[in-house]
Amino acid sequence: MTSQHRLRRRVNFYETDLAGIVHFSCFFRYMEEAEHALWREAGLTIARAGEETGFPRLAASCDFHAPLRFEDEFEVWVRVARITRRTLHYTFVMTRGETKIATGSTTVACVSKRHGEPMKAIDLPADIVARFAVAPDTEA
Amino acid sequence: MTSQHRLRRRVNFYETDLAGIVHFSCFFRYMEEAEHALWREAGLTIARAGEETGFPRLAASCDFHAPLRFEDEFEVWVRVARITRRTLHYTFVMTRGETKIATGSTTVACVSKRHGEPMKAIDLPADIVARFAVAPDTEA
Amino acid sequence: MTSQHRLRRRVNFYETDLAGIVHFSCFFRYMEEAEHALWREAGLTIARAGEETGFPRLAASCDFHAPLRFEDEFEVWVRVARITRRTLHYTFVMTRGETKIATGSTTVACVSKRHGEPMKAIDLPADIVARFAVAPDTEA
Amino acid sequence: MTSQHRLRRRVNFYETDLAGIVHFSCFFRYMEEAEHALWREAGLTIARAGEETGFPRLAASCDFHAPLRFEDEFEVWVRVARITRRTLHYTFVMTRGETKIATGSTTVACVSKRHGEPMKAIDLPADIVARFAVAPDTEA
Repeated sequence: MTSQHRLRRRVNFYETDLAGIVHFSCFFRYMEEAEHALWREAGLTIARAGEETGFPRLAASCDFHAPLRFEDEFEVWVRVARITRRTLHYTFVMTRGETKIATGSTTVACVSKRHGEPMKAIDLPADIVARFAVAPDTEA
Repeated sequence: MTSQHRLRRRVNFYETDLAGIVHFSCFFRYMEEAEHALWREAGLTIARAGEETGFPRLAASCDFHAPLRFEDEFEVWVRVARITRRTLHYTFVMTRGETKIATGSTTVACVSKRHGEPMKAIDLPADIVARFAVAPDTEA
Repeated sequence: MTSQHRLRRRVNFYETDLAGIVHFSCFFRYMEEAEHALWREAGLTIARAGEETGFPRLAASCDFHAPLRFEDEFEVWVRVARITRRTLHYTFVMTRGETKIATGSTTVACVSKRHGEPMKAIDLPADIVARFAVAPDTEA
Repeated sequence: MTSQHRLRRRVNFYETDLAGIVHFSCFFRYMEEAEHALWREAGLTIARAGEETGFPRLAASCDFHAPLRFEDEFEVWVRVARITRRTLHYTFVMTRGETKIATGSTTVACVSKRHGEPMKAIDLPADIVARFAVAPDTEA
């Protein structure tokens, strides 16, 4: 069972803004990249073409502690914080070396998205839940 | 004094993802667009070329209630929720017609960014604070 | 029949990069926005949920003449340059006031994308072709 | 002297659009990533904070041969195609396994961007030119 993952990444030019730092919206993309790498580590993919199950976000938040700049190498540490019948809750810590860059969280639901019908919340598939465990809530 | 603004917007194709809905990271971009429109309404711009003052985000969060799809027309209602010596706090409500799409918040700091020095938090400039008022906390 | 469209737009903060100007990849997004506005003017939408017909790009190019900056207001002028049995060819001129910012072109194909099958090029639907005409090749 | 580089990359979720494939504008971002990796391999960085020299694009083009999908692993092969006094010209080939995904090119200028003055084209710095060589024009 997989409960956490550390993604290493380098800042791309197009992720910076005129203030010379990574745009805050990109941090949410970094979190998602780490989440999907966690799924791959668990032997899963979060999206298969044509699949009728999806995993939209219910909530996302981020606290920004220090800026990231072009070509900075950083790490996104994602942990499974909680699993309920219908939601996965992740927490994230982003660091550049010893510097804490940001901390965040996302809550992900499971939905059925049959064509022509509105999305409908459903239980997390058992074969997916079976692959994940809640990570211990300790700092690195 | 300006305390709120309603931005009308249409979803662009490149803001959607393979799930057929707007990617959650774009909601943070929509919030920023509304914030900057609020600044323009207040006779201000949040970023002038070469300026040594910047307004980075300290925190951002969003709760997603319903999806947005390609070409949907929607509204982002931004309100000034709190002003402190060094921070501006906004709340956001996004709607498509009668449907509440998302609610969010951001906290923005003021920093001095002299070239070659790290960013340093400073007080919000008085001439900027003078343009904003806290909006009444009532729902639409 | 619709043959051209002028989209007015303002530069968003998140479209700039650390060089203080709009990232070149965003110009292609601006072109697409203008193209889709052209389709709406023609009474069409380029993407309907669940539809089995799509309009992927075969080619895109852009020449950059002058930079765009945060909050610049600019115009994207899209024209239908050529229609063949299976492709639509557009040209674009982007201006800020009297300044020519960029010129570009895209070629768009029509594909059938049945689930589980690879995309397959097909003829442009007759009811779509009927809505467009080639624009005269004159400068503004 | 460095004349080419191969970047390996995986498609991120947020790079896909509602058609289920990577949005065409992202291909230009992939090309830029490969270019900047080439610069790093040459011991250079294309953007240093506060620097008064920049490398904006003069032109960019891409031909799209096959789609990329979520989590596809692909390669961007960038080559220096031509060096003039004031421009660098690159060509790109993107592949997923044996499949050619896209071919592209960009032309990059060198500019001086003193604060408060418009960008001005200047000669490529000699210490930068010295690090690059034109790649032989052979297919992989």
